[in-house]
Amino acid sequence: MYGAIEAGGTKFVCAVGNDRGDIIDEAQFPTTVPDETMKEVISFFQKHHVKAIGIGSFGPIEVNKDHADYGSITSTPKLTWANYPIVDVMKEMFDVPIGFNTDVNAAALGESFTGAAKGLDSCLYITVGTGIGAGAVVNGSLLQGWSHPEMGHILVRRHPEDPYEGTCPYHKDCLEGLAAGPAIERRWEKKGIELADKQEVWEMEAFYLAQAIMQYMLILSPKRIVMGGGVMKQKQLFPLVRKQVATLLNGYISLPELETFIVPPGLGDHAGITGALMLAKNEVEK
Amino acid sequence: MYGAIEAGGTKFVCAVGNDRGDIIDEAQFPTTVPDETMKEVISFFQKHHVKAIGIGSFGPIEVNKDHADYGSITSTPKLTWANYPIVDVMKEMFDVPIGFNTDVNAAALGESFTGAAKGLDSCLYITVGTGIGAGAVVNGSLLQGWSHPEMGHILVRRHPEDPYEGTCPYHKDCLEGLAAGPAIERRWEKKGIELADKQEVWEMEAFYLAQAIMQYMLILSPKRIVMGGGVMKQKQLFPLVRKQVATLLNGYISLPELETFIVPPGLGDHAGITGALMLAKNEVEK
Repeated sequence: MYGAIEAGGTKFVCAVGNDRGDIIDEAQFPTTVPDETMKEVISFFQKHHVKAIGIGSFGPIEVNKDHADYGSITSTPKLTWANYPIVDVMKEMFDVPIGFNTDVNAAALGESFTGAAKGLDSCLYITVGTGIGAGAVVNGSLLQGWSHPEMGHILVRRHPEDPYEGTCPYHKDCLEGLAAGPAIERRWEKKGIELADKQEVWEMEAFYLAQAIMQYMLILSPKRIVMGGGVMKQKQLFPLVRKQVATLLNGYISLPELETFIVPPGLGDHAGITGALMLAKNEVEK
Repeated sequence: MYGAIEAGGTKFVCAVGNDRGDIIDEAQFPTTVPDETMKEVISFFQKHHVKAIGIGSFGPIEVNKDHADYGSITSTPKLTWANYPIVDVMKEMFDVPIGFNTDVNAAALGESFTGAAKGLDSCLYITVGTGIGAGAVVNGSLLQGWSHPEMGHILVRRHPEDPYEGTCPYHKDCLEGLAAGPAIERRWEKKGIELADKQEVWEMEAFYLAQAIMQYMLILSPKRIVMGGGVMKQKQLFPLVRKQVATLLNGYISLPELETFIVPPGLGDHAGITGALMLAKNEVEK
């Protein structure tokens, strides 16, 4: 049995499962302050015997094992969690290998193991919700280098009819600043879910997301792109994004069939927690 | 001994070298029509006994071994080379393993093996010349997925004082369309080399290149970025690019020291041919 934690900004999901990604037990706890939330997490795992634990965490986090603060959540705006050494805290309680990566890298791993990119050694997982983030599997391994990717903050060209300045405190109108849930809400002065039938909202959203997909395709050449998160529950976005991606690329690269290339998660909201289980498995097999 | 071919749009470089990347013999032939150029290439290798040959080629090329046209140059505008099965042609003459990848992926491999990114398991190599292309090493292997990357064609935001429409036949004002050598020449009506002392030329060039570097950093998180090609011989570009990258990222991610992170090739113009030697070596070791 493996343990898994999907550490999110609003809730922590904890699970126990097997090496095929089947989840046996699962619980959720609200993300409050570390002492409170981690007490729940620890008591969940004290009820189970696991041989490793995988953590897919909100970020930024330190993923390089040769850095002093490896295993910490670093400069998050959630101040009580800034510089929180989550791996060390778990290691102190449980004497097992701990895998650690970003929530989106975990989701990419989950989708490539048993979801919409099953059997592929290459995929990209992007979440469009309160923020935008993405993770990738390249040649069968999680993409990592100097640090983990921060794909949500790439630059995009502004839509000619979009006067909204953008929400990003660092870049104003980067992808996340213009296309994450809060940007939709402030631009149109309604929640995305109340705007479902407004064509112009989703055309503009697809305009930004398609630019991002184009950059990801040209730079990473993934074998499949899985789009999840709250905003992508507006399923009308998928055909709009596919169409604008084809228009932008304009025949430059030979494209896979976009219908089966840009897809929703095969695991629904379970991509992250399943991937965290795989992080645990990988840590044992290393 | 290994053999190496750097197949470029204007010339083919052929070399023989050892597994440490030392080149023993080298020759260059102009890229004319396949029959003519390949006759020279074949007669060069007939003079040497090599146990494998690596080819770093101009593209687009087919790099997936499970595709029928693996080993071909595909849709190049150099029409006599379109759909040319260069790997098959070499295999017919020489009964040795043949490694095959893009010229820029080969250069990334060369720089990470014995150049400016020596000892790192992650780097990006970008060439800015007649065109713009980039290759990357991720977790110690060449980046590859659905196909090879085509990083030169990413979208950039236009400089507010740049009226030039762009040269790219597919996207007009993508990165290559605005920042490759021909765009500089047509925008300023002089060759780049004659514009060396015009500050505004290089400020604008750095404006575009820095946007690209930002996207590459956020998406790939390389451990080092090596910038080569004819345009990058204007060394004044390096400090300008580094400065604009820092401005664009605006403190969002913890940065390495940019002085040693964005650098010229350690192998000068030999990155590609050295990498092609490594493609041969990798093919034997696989």
